[in-house]
Amino acid sequence: MNTKQIRLKERPVGMPTYETFDWTNNEVSEPSEGEVLLKSIYISVDPYMRGRMNDQKSYVEPYRVGEVISGGVIAEVVKSNSAEYVPGDLVIGNLGWQTYQIANEDHLRKIDPKQAPISTHLGVIGMPGMTAYFGLLDIGKPESGETVVVSGAAGAVGTVVGQIAKIAGARVVGIAGTDEKIKYLKEELHFDEVINYKSDQYFEALREACPKGVDVYYDNVGGEVSDAVLRLINKGARIPICGQISLYNLEKPDYGMRVQPNLLVNSALMKGFIVSDYGAHFEEAIKDLSNWLQEGKLKYKETIVEGFENIPEAFIGLFKGENIGKYIVKVADPEHN
Amino acid sequence: MNTKQIRLKERPVGMPTYETFDWTNNEVSEPSEGEVLLKSIYISVDPYMRGRMNDQKSYVEPYRVGEVISGGVIAEVVKSNSAEYVPGDLVIGNLGWQTYQIANEDHLRKIDPKQAPISTHLGVIGMPGMTAYFGLLDIGKPESGETVVVSGAAGAVGTVVGQIAKIAGARVVGIAGTDEKIKYLKEELHFDEVINYKSDQYFEALREACPKGVDVYYDNVGGEVSDAVLRLINKGARIPICGQISLYNLEKPDYGMRVQPNLLVNSALMKGFIVSDYGAHFEEAIKDLSNWLQEGKLKYKETIVEGFENIPEAFIGLFKGENIGKYIVKVADPEHN
Repeated sequence: MNTKQIRLKERPVGMPTYETFDWTNNEVSEPSEGEVLLKSIYISVDPYMRGRMNDQKSYVEPYRVGEVISGGVIAEVVKSNSAEYVPGDLVIGNLGWQTYQIANEDHLRKIDPKQAPISTHLGVIGMPGMTAYFGLLDIGKPESGETVVVSGAAGAVGTVVGQIAKIAGARVVGIAGTDEKIKYLKEELHFDEVINYKSDQYFEALREACPKGVDVYYDNVGGEVSDAVLRLINKGARIPICGQISLYNLEKPDYGMRVQPNLLVNSALMKGFIVSDYGAHFEEAIKDLSNWLQEGKLKYKETIVEGFENIPEAFIGLFKGENIGKYIVKVADPEHN
Repeated sequence: MNTKQIRLKERPVGMPTYETFDWTNNEVSEPSEGEVLLKSIYISVDPYMRGRMNDQKSYVEPYRVGEVISGGVIAEVVKSNSAEYVPGDLVIGNLGWQTYQIANEDHLRKIDPKQAPISTHLGVIGMPGMTAYFGLLDIGKPESGETVVVSGAAGAVGTVVGQIAKIAGARVVGIAGTDEKIKYLKEELHFDEVINYKSDQYFEALREACPKGVDVYYDNVGGEVSDAVLRLINKGARIPICGQISLYNLEKPDYGMRVQPNLLVNSALMKGFIVSDYGAHFEEAIKDLSNWLQEGKLKYKETIVEGFENIPEAFIGLFKGENIGKYIVKVADPEHN
């Protein structure tokens, strides 16, 4: 069977372009014992993948040049040589950007299309949702009445951060970059305030939105947007560092005001993390997120682009602030569902 | 009775000078009910006091211009109108830079000259010792076999940090600025390696001294000395921010490489603190530190200058890296001891 594949052609310097990617066609073999043949349904594009394109230590191992790019994929079992899966099963795993592929049963998790729309396993109850959950609850530890600020607020992680903070009883201030995002966060997700970081009055607006200062800053973006928030932190503030999307495409290391004196005078905590740090606790996170989703406490939005050939464009779009909520590429419909 | 006093004359811009201070003479009244008249014996000079000289949020409230400067002082009770104290008692408290003063019994703690040399209550078993203890054990949490780096290693806090890290079974690498300090830390305190940050080969030497990377970086100094250490941190590193002495006298905010991307890819934790955050646990710290002192596991050195009039010079000397161990000014001998 023929499969299309997208590979890393060359490591991008700065913003990725179409030149970053290479397109190949290949034959997929038959599944060996314990393997299945998968058809890709939804492919996730995520900001962290940019880090893997560099030849340096990041969250995860770098992609090799020439390698098929991999990430979160929801797929359908087409043929099975595994006792655990039958054709028609829907699975999620860290899989390649390809239309068909062979995968080992040990690297997959079955998902139930009756529990929630299957695409949510890439978003609100998947990796981005868990990233929000652990960073906010384990590092940020918001308390009722505290002020939580989240940057990248309209993204797959930020939307969940704000809603969990509301569930915890906190006052939530989002930071986003378009009127459409701000309207969505305020009207649909009921964030208390949302500030546009592109405004000339950004810092003043942020200060007004946080009259009692900032107790938790969940940072998805870094750079000067974050510097402004850090000027407002309270004694004992907690700052989960989830992402630094404003920096991923910089060609030189980023300079700014050192944060250590600020952390010092405020006895504040700043901690980086990656969702896999919490691997032992995934089940409880998925359970909580799924319950909140069913109870209507957690809403979500997806930006879904259709077509395998549009994956690079969607990926590049992440860094242009195009998406609200989870950015997903739909590659095919399931055959059996 | 006449007392000499040292007041804040003007807020220093950059490094404090003699112009920062004002000298006054005053009469001390008689102690009222619940008060004692104190004679100062040892006066502590500490880097954090520099922050209090600025008109901005720091660890503690700023000194007011014209106010007698205050800090850790060991004094002898000369007259008592308190049921808790009799003349001859030795006490420690947050007291003024003055030769005699009235103090309320509630703001003092009695110290036992038989337990340990009284000056150690300003150092190894006092505020600097506890600062080392809590920052290292509560934030740094060194484990046996891990590499702990401490900057300002020869200071009142750094000497204790390194020794507690050795007690915890860690490999200890100190950073200091003179050959005399390096010799002391290696030969007397048995640090595994000590690096001179003034060397041209500073970073290379540091890297060689930490072949397994850095698990805990106890930061007393900040700035570029710290940037070099941060390049070597391991996944899961912990970075207590205790002080930033290299920055205290800067006239402008300090710029450098943003640490957030580094914390992110290493899931590392950075946390500022002040010893008073741990007020509820002082007794256990003093008990552990005193035991280690008696068992010979904790050694200390003091730089003692004699004469009330030399306090400003000693204070300024802190920022010139003059002292090994705790810098103290001896003002008088006790009368009754």
